[in-house]
Amino acid sequence: MDPDLLLADLAAGKTAALARAISVVENGRPGFEQLLAGVHRSLGQARRIGITGPPGAGKSTLVERLVIAYRAAGLRVGVVAIDPTSPFTGGALLGDRIRLESVALDEGVYIRSMASRGSLGGLATSTREVSDLLDAAGFDRILVETVGVGQSELDVTRMADTTILVLVPESGDGIQTLKSGVMEAVDIFAVNKADRPGADKLRQEIEVTLGIRRGNAYRNMPAHHGYRASGRPGKPAAAESSAAGDAPWDHPVLLTVAAKGEGTGDLIAAIDRHHEWLARSGSLDQRRRRRLLERTREVVDRAARRWMWGETHAEQVINDRLDQVVDGRLSPYDVATEVLDGLKQGARL
Amino acid sequence: MDPDLLLADLAAGKTAALARAISVVENGRPGFEQLLAGVHRSLGQARRIGITGPPGAGKSTLVERLVIAYRAAGLRVGVVAIDPTSPFTGGALLGDRIRLESVALDEGVYIRSMASRGSLGGLATSTREVSDLLDAAGFDRILVETVGVGQSELDVTRMADTTILVLVPESGDGIQTLKSGVMEAVDIFAVNKADRPGADKLRQEIEVTLGIRRGNAYRNMPAHHGYRASGRPGKPAAAESSAAGDAPWDHPVLLTVAAKGEGTGDLIAAIDRHHEWLARSGSLDQRRRRRLLERTREVVDRAARRWMWGETHAEQVINDRLDQVVDGRLSPYDVATEVLDGLKQGARL
Repeated sequence: MDPDLLLADLAAGKTAALARAISVVENGRPGFEQLLAGVHRSLGQARRIGITGPPGAGKSTLVERLVIAYRAAGLRVGVVAIDPTSPFTGGALLGDRIRLESVALDEGVYIRSMASRGSLGGLATSTREVSDLLDAAGFDRILVETVGVGQSELDVTRMADTTILVLVPESGDGIQTLKSGVMEAVDIFAVNKADRPGADKLRQEIEVTLGIRRGNAYRNMPAHHGYRASGRPGKPAAAESSAAGDAPWDHPVLLTVAAKGEGTGDLIAAIDRHHEWLARSGSLDQRRRRRLLERTREVVDRAARRWMWGETHAEQVINDRLDQVVDGRLSPYDVATEVLDGLKQGARL
Repeated sequence: MDPDLLLADLAAGKTAALARAISVVENGRPGFEQLLAGVHRSLGQARRIGITGPPGAGKSTLVERLVIAYRAAGLRVGVVAIDPTSPFTGGALLGDRIRLESVALDEGVYIRSMASRGSLGGLATSTREVSDLLDAAGFDRILVETVGVGQSELDVTRMADTTILVLVPESGDGIQTLKSGVMEAVDIFAVNKADRPGADKLRQEIEVTLGIRRGNAYRNMPAHHGYRASGRPGKPAAAESSAAGDAPWDHPVLLTVAAKGEGTGDLIAAIDRHHEWLARSGSLDQRRRRRLLERTREVVDRAARRWMWGETHAEQVINDRLDQVVDGRLSPYDVATEVLDGLKQGARL
């Protein structure tokens, strides 16, 4: 692979170059860091939108609706779908994928599934790097869909500009265990399949959990959200005032029926409104800086591990000592001390 | 903390020492590696049993039943319950915990909840280390319960002697996506809440997925399971022949109704039978060796990261270069190269 050639083809929007670059990055093949370093300066054109939620919430259908709407607006859309390696997904994964393929023949759409392979870098880092490539290839919107429930899924979307949590009326019980960290991680809540009973109730529960009640906005909002206790008399409440850029984000809870296309317009409007809020409030720059700090830490961490496991004697020391670990003469911690002593002296192969 | 004193108290079965040791290990406080190294030689007395499955499958109730049954047999039982940091668990977590407390006042039972904190080592490693402490403290059975669905939960239980996957009749759809890796990861399947419709159907689906059909045992079993194509004429089928120690494990699928205590006896018998199979087939030693290899790698990995992030200039280099990363003059990959060059020269604070 010639990284410079690949970079030029990528910037020229050649789909084959994108597919090749993603493959190089996803598999950590030689030159992948050079490739990513090469696109770094050109990043930031695309808006990154994370979509997460429990299995069966209809995320893929919602993603498909978003793709169609963005395409109608003339935007190019990349979709990164995280296929969990979970043995039991609880959802009709295959069906979802097939549905997504209804938009996959469109040249303005690029869909990529990613699977965790226990790589040293981790799925979250790989997902962000593939998103970088889509950004560099000129896509306007990047939708990162995670099929699953848990911290690791939130980690994947944490680096998005806008994170959407998709729930269904049946998720009601789980909402009680919503932790405060969600407030920071999720920007927009979508109660999908809202034509089922309980959608309004779930919306209210989410809003109560968030501390947002109509006419009582932000009373329960934690201080670090930047809410000024003084308020501003005469301003309209929550949803409207946030657009002025001087109020905290209002975390809207939307009702959608993705299968029928209902609520897609509201969702896109909310995403756009969130982007405006990010830009006006200065959060976009803050988030970008924080993301680059975290990304750099991840990249350093991975580089150090690749060095240790690929270019030092670490693995060999472990294998040489394994018999003693098994018979109890040495503990894993003794072996770690030996390996570390080597590293501290700059040990290499 | 005096590790030697704590180790002595731990070996003497003092509950306060156990709680203190767990706290030291879970938080990676000074001396935690010394403590774990100190118990290494005495490990292997306890049988470790992992219980995983989707939210709402009734894992905690099943765990409680197992605890009661083991206590009735005079065994001491440790329970390590993984509290996911997932913002939406989809299950009545609190209720489960309260129920478990019905056995928590028993001196022969020790229950510990663990939460992921994004530590450098990861939850899986911490869980194994806490299990080590319970083992060293003389518990006979250690039940590791993960509330969740996904690879990370399987990782947590992967180090168990016996891993049980708990499903409910409603899990049926998800079974179709069972991946072949489950065969290795799960030893016993429990279809819980089996008084609901669909339990038998789910059991059959699992058995078909596993390639185990009555009278057609192991035909579809992958070669690495050690099945001898020649077979042995006249031997009884699947379930019985495995006890002889020369057949592959038969991955039983049991029906349970934990809330009523139905099937608990069968489950315990299956766990015991699996342990006998492990011992007779030589798998116990193989698993133990493989686990120690993986554990040592984890411990080395964590030690290296603690060194890099705590005792070298890595974090400072990143912070010094962040402005240039933000304005595009440097990429995270350039920074990683700089940090690595330092490490390779044995850089330290």
